[in-house]
Amino acid sequence: MKGQILKALRECSDYLSGEKLSEQLGISRVSIWKHIRSLKKDGYVIGASPRGYRLVSSPDLLLPYEFPDLEQRIHYFPEIGSTMDAARELARKGAGEGTIVIAEAQAHGRGRLSREWLSPKGGIYFTLILRPSISPAYAPRINLMASVAVAATIRKLFGLNAELKWPNDVLIEGRKVCGILAEMDAEMDVVNFVNVGIGINANTSVPQFEKTATSLKDTLGRKISRKEFLSVLLGEIERRQALLMEADLLEEWKKLSGTLNKYVRILSLGEVIVGRAIDIDTTGALIIRKRNGSLKKALAGDCIHLREETPDTDMGAVSRQHSV
Amino acid sequence: MKGQILKALRECSDYLSGEKLSEQLGISRVSIWKHIRSLKKDGYVIGASPRGYRLVSSPDLLLPYEFPDLEQRIHYFPEIGSTMDAARELARKGAGEGTIVIAEAQAHGRGRLSREWLSPKGGIYFTLILRPSISPAYAPRINLMASVAVAATIRKLFGLNAELKWPNDVLIEGRKVCGILAEMDAEMDVVNFVNVGIGINANTSVPQFEKTATSLKDTLGRKISRKEFLSVLLGEIERRQALLMEADLLEEWKKLSGTLNKYVRILSLGEVIVGRAIDIDTTGALIIRKRNGSLKKALAGDCIHLREETPDTDMGAVSRQHSV
Repeated sequence: MKGQILKALRECSDYLSGEKLSEQLGISRVSIWKHIRSLKKDGYVIGASPRGYRLVSSPDLLLPYEFPDLEQRIHYFPEIGSTMDAARELARKGAGEGTIVIAEAQAHGRGRLSREWLSPKGGIYFTLILRPSISPAYAPRINLMASVAVAATIRKLFGLNAELKWPNDVLIEGRKVCGILAEMDAEMDVVNFVNVGIGINANTSVPQFEKTATSLKDTLGRKISRKEFLSVLLGEIERRQALLMEADLLEEWKKLSGTLNKYVRILSLGEVIVGRAIDIDTTGALIIRKRNGSLKKALAGDCIHLREETPDTDMGAVSRQHSV
Repeated sequence: MKGQILKALRECSDYLSGEKLSEQLGISRVSIWKHIRSLKKDGYVIGASPRGYRLVSSPDLLLPYEFPDLEQRIHYFPEIGSTMDAARELARKGAGEGTIVIAEAQAHGRGRLSREWLSPKGGIYFTLILRPSISPAYAPRINLMASVAVAATIRKLFGLNAELKWPNDVLIEGRKVCGILAEMDAEMDVVNFVNVGIGINANTSVPQFEKTATSLKDTLGRKISRKEFLSVLLGEIERRQALLMEADLLEEWKKLSGTLNKYVRILSLGEVIVGRAIDIDTTGALIIRKRNGSLKKALAGDCIHLREETPDTDMGAVSRQHSV
């Protein structure tokens, strides 16, 4: 309801009377007043006069009421341990497809393979619960879908040349601006749920010496509207959910990919694969042509883009400055 | 410790003095006495005389002390909702590889796809927590491994011609004697844990009219030792865990398979596939040659063995009496 009130206030260029609001939303004027008071507590500045209410300013927070169509599905936390942990708990208890856990900051943000994902205020951190009717083998397509949606959002809003690094990073000028982590709970046949965690370096600052990461703020030289970004991104994801098993998704990924045709070094479950990335298959696995011409498939893993063809030793160290 | 005491009593053909027990196990005689009292409470009949203790009889229960080498890893319940639910909770909290949840009966035993698995007393119901370093794509091999171990145990102990029905049933004379359910928690890269639930119709009775199921008791015409069965089975599983990613496992599965070379009807995520099962691939997927010669892969699903070649309509109903 707070979302509906904010929406009505935003759509009105002048003061909006309590009577009109009450009529429009079908709730009592006392109820309106209570919601207004609660919004003020959240940091909204709302002017009140005999003519009614007027929204003066909104806090820079990803509060559920900022997404009126999704309000019921959003679990919001000013700070949380990890949105992944909260979402898993919710999913276990039966939370439906499309449930979203948003946090302004995470104390223990998680990346792939139990790595830490730094999550200070200013970033965008959320986990989306999905319940697709697919076999676990196809779950990596959800990663592709989410990364395509993030890159599409960055391109649409800022015209930046966002690229995808297999399996699940989004890069701007070769630097990571977004990480994606997907966790699933499944039988051998069928996925129960896949939780997709997306962490975006939005209005955070990345230290100058850090050559492998960037933020939208650092790239653009200005702060972005996190609300607008998240709103557009959720739309881009939703639009692609229906396409999850379609060839179009793979085509879109290929178009945005910065990995295809590059020499890569993949570390996957202890195995190192070096070669040219030539394609992805229907499960989202990367197909690599090794120097000896043989093809190798990587289902997932750490991927480094190599600047040039390096000896196919499958072993030697690759120095940091030659890699992303 | 109770397991060690039982073991010592069983290894001794006569009375075993408290003093000797105390020496052998390195605990006080008072401690021995307390454990004996506790064992009696569990249903063990233990004779006591001035010469010491003697085990007269043991209850027909799968108590942890019956498996002295595994005692610390076993969580035992006389009755439980579902061993799968308990194991998931334990795995989430970090329970190690090899943790086992055993129940004498389950109130809400689960089969694949949220189906019910009837679990009255007399059966063997347990869930084993595994933490293999494999990609989720290979997790179905754990099903194959578990079903091979069950069939091997039945063949070894009773000389019965147990066969495997893809993906995860064990049949005797075409009737199901064991069901296996595996659930995983995974990132796209790597499995966090796979819980394997095994339900065996051991000393239960299957109604005469039920043509698709049987029990070991009904087949053999006598009760079996559930303890011996579980002990041998856990050994057969452990031996194969190291072979999970080896070709040998697939070869063993193929040898025991009742599905290969049969005409099958597979229902997998809403799709029906009819044809001859000709092979399995490295992920455990079944490869089916349709009547038109084309090959089709089923990652998982419901499988019906057809008695004879049926028209490859991919649609029509198959009557119960022609199928298993």
